Amino acid sequence: MMQTPLTIGSMLEHAEKFFAKKEVISQTHDKLHHLTYAAIGERTRRLMNALGQLGVQKGDRVGTLAWNHHRHLEIYFAAPGMGAVLHTINIRLAPEHIIYIINHAEDKILFVDEDILPLIEKVRDKLQTVEAFVVMSDKDELPASNLNPLYSYEKLLQTGDPEHPFEKNIDENDPAGMCYTSATTGNPKGVVYSHRGIVLHSYALGLADTAAISESDVSMPVVPQFHVNAWGTPFACTWFGSTQVMPGPRFTPKRLAEFIEKFKVTITAGVPTIWLGLLRELEQGDYDTSSLRAVLCGGSAAPKGLIQAFEHKLGIPFAHAYGATETTPLVTYSRLKSYQQNLGKDEQLHERAKQGALVPGLEMKVMGDTGEVAWNGVEMGELLLRGPWIASEYYEDERTEQAFHDSWFHTGDVVTVDEEGNIRIVDRTKDLIKSGGEWISSVEIENAIMAHDAVFEASVVAIPDAEWQERPVACVVLHEGYADKIDKDDLLSFIRPQFAKWWLPDDVLFFKDIPKTSVGKFLKRQLREQVKAHYHIQD
Amino acid sequence: MMQTPLTIGSMLEHAEKFFAKKEVISQTHDKLHHLTYAAIGERTRRLMNALGQLGVQKGDRVGTLAWNHHRHLEIYFAAPGMGAVLHTINIRLAPEHIIYIINHAEDKILFVDEDILPLIEKVRDKLQTVEAFVVMSDKDELPASNLNPLYSYEKLLQTGDPEHPFEKNIDENDPAGMCYTSATTGNPKGVVYSHRGIVLHSYALGLADTAAISESDVSMPVVPQFHVNAWGTPFACTWFGSTQVMPGPRFTPKRLAEFIEKFKVTITAGVPTIWLGLLRELEQGDYDTSSLRAVLCGGSAAPKGLIQAFEHKLGIPFAHAYGATETTPLVTYSRLKSYQQNLGKDEQLHERAKQGALVPGLEMKVMGDTGEVAWNGVEMGELLLRGPWIASEYYEDERTEQAFHDSWFHTGDVVTVDEEGNIRIVDRTKDLIKSGGEWISSVEIENAIMAHDAVFEASVVAIPDAEWQERPVACVVLHEGYADKIDKDDLLSFIRPQFAKWWLPDDVLFFKDIPKTSVGKFLKRQLREQVKAHYHIQD
Repeated sequence: MMQTPLTIGSMLEHAEKFFAKKEVISQTHDKLHHLTYAAIGERTRRLMNALGQLGVQKGDRVGTLAWNHHRHLEIYFAAPGMGAVLHTINIRLAPEHIIYIINHAEDKILFVDEDILPLIEKVRDKLQTVEAFVVMSDKDELPASNLNPLYSYEKLLQTGDPEHPFEKNIDENDPAGMCYTSATTGNPKGVVYSHRGIVLHSYALGLADTAAISESDVSMPVVPQFHVNAWGTPFACTWFGSTQVMPGPRFTPKRLAEFIEKFKVTITAGVPTIWLGLLRELEQGDYDTSSLRAVLCGGSAAPKGLIQAFEHKLGIPFAHAYGATETTPLVTYSRLKSYQQNLGKDEQLHERAKQGALVPGLEMKVMGDTGEVAWNGVEMGELLLRGPWIASEYYEDERTEQAFHDSWFHTGDVVTVDEEGNIRIVDRTKDLIKSGGEWISSVEIENAIMAHDAVFEASVVAIPDAEWQERPVACVVLHEGYADKIDKDDLLSFIRPQFAKWWLPDDVLFFKDIPKTSVGKFLKRQLREQVKAHYHIQD
Repeated sequence: MMQTPLTIGSMLEHAEKFFAKKEVISQTHDKLHHLTYAAIGERTRRLMNALGQLGVQKGDRVGTLAWNHHRHLEIYFAAPGMGAVLHTINIRLAPEHIIYIINHAEDKILFVDEDILPLIEKVRDKLQTVEAFVVMSDKDELPASNLNPLYSYEKLLQTGDPEHPFEKNIDENDPAGMCYTSATTGNPKGVVYSHRGIVLHSYALGLADTAAISESDVSMPVVPQFHVNAWGTPFACTWFGSTQVMPGPRFTPKRLAEFIEKFKVTITAGVPTIWLGLLRELEQGDYDTSSLRAVLCGGSAAPKGLIQAFEHKLGIPFAHAYGATETTPLVTYSRLKSYQQNLGKDEQLHERAKQGALVPGLEMKVMGDTGEVAWNGVEMGELLLRGPWIASEYYEDERTEQAFHDSWFHTGDVVTVDEEGNIRIVDRTKDLIKSGGEWISSVEIENAIMAHDAVFEASVVAIPDAEWQERPVACVVLHEGYADKIDKDDLLSFIRPQFAKWWLPDDVLFFKDIPKTSVGKFLKRQLREQVKAHYHIQD
């Protein structure tokens, strides 16, 4: 067979040729853009050429601090397309972490949305490797800024050759992208993605039994493009010719609902927090969401109540998936097997609330204390992963050996596996609660509590206990209007039938909100401190 | 990213774990078998172990002369799974060609269906490298045979370890399979498939916009497993957990129709000749074919009338695809774009009768006399292909350079490409008819004639002409009962509106049947000789 490499540039070339008329619809700060893949292709070629003129060379890191829009999509292809490395930076990180990752990745050039400029202006003096800044805006003039040299994205494009070729001299194992993931302690850890990994991951997203991304799709990625390749959808949707709807900066649930109706969105992807917000908007408003064939949910486990609300109340198919920054990210996808289609509604929901089965192309292993656990839906163990889109290290980071050893990536996620091969995330290894020598899953209790109509969010953490070592405490945010109507006993009674007695939380605390990471996950470490302070517990 | 290779063994391992309960339903000579993927996996592991005991080593060629059944499927995985090479031999080739390819491939062991034994017994003395024969049968005793040593497949399996591991020391570029393709003149030419090529090809088959092979499918490959990896479906269907229905030896259209109804087949694949036969059976009988979501048609161009009959008369979705032995084989797949769904019935048929657009992962180029042709649906040129599942050579064959040069595979197929990137096969380069210095496509005229209700098959060939260099003559097989009712003028009048005057055949000859290759394609070289003999033309 021919030795042709798997490259990201070839994916956009395919779209230019076979989906020239299909559109990317992009909401920027000032207006709504409609661009065909022919236009996106031409602009990407101009950008590659212009970047070359600015001195960007093969292997150089190209950083972005930007929302979801067409310009960000163009850089997604231009940087790897010219052999450079796309480095998407999470704008929600603390400034010191942003400084760290830009310096650590040695970004040579930074693309910044106009409204994000102030963030980077403040830390400008600490950046050791950046040689140029490019502001992305619809305006003709450059904004006033202390950044220097500062270029306008659109003016830069005008200087580029619209027929500039994609770099052909690429090894498919060359780095194509990178993304940093927050660590429990210390600085974020970097993951480098290869051309090969991203192309194979894109195939996986197009499979009939996973996201089945198709030319006929209208895809709206809500997950920010600064998270893990925005879960691979910008690559896969371009390759397969889907219409893409980019919701732009600082979108609201209202805008998402309006875009779904207006552009007949068929598939969208994001974290549970986003879907909780959208759910409230859809329940209050009057939107036509009949075009939706899949709401992809990942990032953290979706409560069963959320899935139930989307599927049974709104009639919107909800698809649970699992992945991580280290895994490009798609690892599992939840769907019923053909012989499970006759299960009752509740049983189906129970199955679908799991994170699902491994996507073809990866290998997994679940390790308990005494070896691989049985696939019986009960035994818990840490999920280990291997495959061509699983990272083999953290970029120039001593913490590599903690997670990558014995040729497996140790996810730190505790799961069960059922007879069908579906995993269920039970907890993070570090968030499991050890009571009387037995493990309690905080996530299980959270999901049970969140199934209560009055509950908006719930997070369960461990507090130290003299007798039992650790005991669970539930932290709950109620929906509006329930504050005086629901108490601790109501919630404990509600979940009591589902658990052994010793799993029940010792207490339920009510919060206005629960601290979250920049990715929308519960920040349990911080929450634990708050709970301990509440009880005046000291380490 | 991790450096994990793409291997065929890992595909069956995935099915063993995630689709353990799903079944392969296999018709052998004597009975119908139901085996789960757990059982197929165990039997494949036993077979790998037993083959090792027989002396088969990494890189050795393992030949098969067999119909479509579960044992053949097991060898599909066992040979590459242990690092050896699966060599499927076309049992319909002439004996001298079978001798040639077994010797040329240096097959070490041959797996033979019981009813095919006589074929190999006759040529046994000419085989230079074969060290052992294995007969595949449901019977306990070995048949009387001059083959020596001769093993029973089932007894061999009993000697093997059911937990024998798949070979881990495999480079994804290692050879995994091979298949010989008939040449216009001379011996067949061999193509070697790699693990990488077959895994990537399997991804392509699972994409929502190609065959979309899924766990929920019941797949019945009608294309014989001795053709081009049976178009990749045994690999993809196993990997993605489809139920597989293997129709076994010497099946009839009746058996196919019965199996479709009985096993609720959702997808099936084969050449136009097969579908013509099935069409007649379905029109005569009373079968429930409502489970069918796709009849895949490749191997040669399907006449529009055939597509029309399946879709409009029978309500069975018909999917046109294109490939070749050199291309693993999937290259293009015909489907309407989302914005073409509103076209009228006839326009849709016109679009769908094309071979379709390039599958993601490959590159194509269509070369006319003066460079790449325009994508306007009119200009003709030869189709050139490149990609990770496109061959780079014929196996140890001097004819390599005729088809493989300038880093492209030159298919020898003449096509047009429309604005959507859909190719239409116009002819083989060697079957084009050159009249008065202009090209006439024999396939175009054939398809037009075959759209006539009275016509079962039509083939158009060139005869030498003193004035025009070459002129077309149509050779036609009529449906039963039409023999006295249709003449030359009826058919020429029927097609006249569609062609320039000089494209019309000079004559129409009526045949009882048209000679075909072992693959069911018109044997135009032989037909041309018959036509020349008819006119007493000598070279």
